[in-house]
Amino acid sequence: MQKALEEAQVARRQEEIPVGAIIVCRGRIIARAHNMTETLNDPTAHAEMQAITSACYTLGGKYLDQCTLYVTLEPCPMCAGALAWAQLGRLVYAASDPKRGFTLVPGSLLHPKTKVTPGVLSAEAGELIKDFFAGKR
Amino acid sequence: MQKALEEAQVARRQEEIPVGAIIVCRGRIIARAHNMTETLNDPTAHAEMQAITSACYTLGGKYLDQCTLYVTLEPCPMCAGALAWAQLGRLVYAASDPKRGFTLVPGSLLHPKTKVTPGVLSAEAGELIKDFFAGKR
Repeated sequence: MQKALEEAQVARRQEEIPVGAIIVCRGRIIARAHNMTETLNDPTAHAEMQAITSACYTLGGKYLDQCTLYVTLEPCPMCAGALAWAQLGRLVYAASDPKRGFTLVPGSLLHPKTKVTPGVLSAEAGELIKDFFAGKR
Repeated sequence: MQKALEEAQVARRQEEIPVGAIIVCRGRIIARAHNMTETLNDPTAHAEMQAITSACYTLGGKYLDQCTLYVTLEPCPMCAGALAWAQLGRLVYAASDPKRGFTLVPGSLLHPKTKVTPGVLSAEAGELIKDFFAGKR
């Protein structure tokens, strides 16, 4: 998650909402990504989406069932839906997103086999986002 | 929708699940796309996602509130979540997806302002998908 926070810092330096993601497969980092919605003018360019595309490219397959995604903010429904298609093995996220998080949607948008660990380094990740928006005001 | 069906035919010729999408803005087609999950080895490469990215690139902005998306199959939760971020003006879809459609999720995953028209040319679109899976067996 420390590496995901570093990615979030990269996003912040680019004036992006600071969210970072890392995908680990069998002990190796296979994807690093950060939010790029402003840079790419693309509302789908969330950190998780970039990380999924990158990890699948590296693995040469569409499934991430042997992988763990570390992301600094709770995924939104779009990203949760993407993680379901990828059949992600494990999701670890830092800060909760009380406005846009996937856990606000009844039922689960994730694949039934995906294990979820929330709250890892959530204070650091939450602070980063709070500071970003405070700086925008 | 006829144009979206043509895109779905392109997908079928590439051994992809035949789903096509078109985005229209002020009477002009600004994006054409089809499912490319197999070709790109990317579970996020649905027709709608490709169309959103392409349309935003063309418009130079992240919002599609002046646009209509025509898609041959009911969007999944990932795509509905993406359409929410894009604040899509109007969604027109053909066949319903009784297993993976976004309408299976309680509440709405779309933006509250998005107008929805289901069932346009649904027989043709449904037939295309049914034939594709029949050919796979």
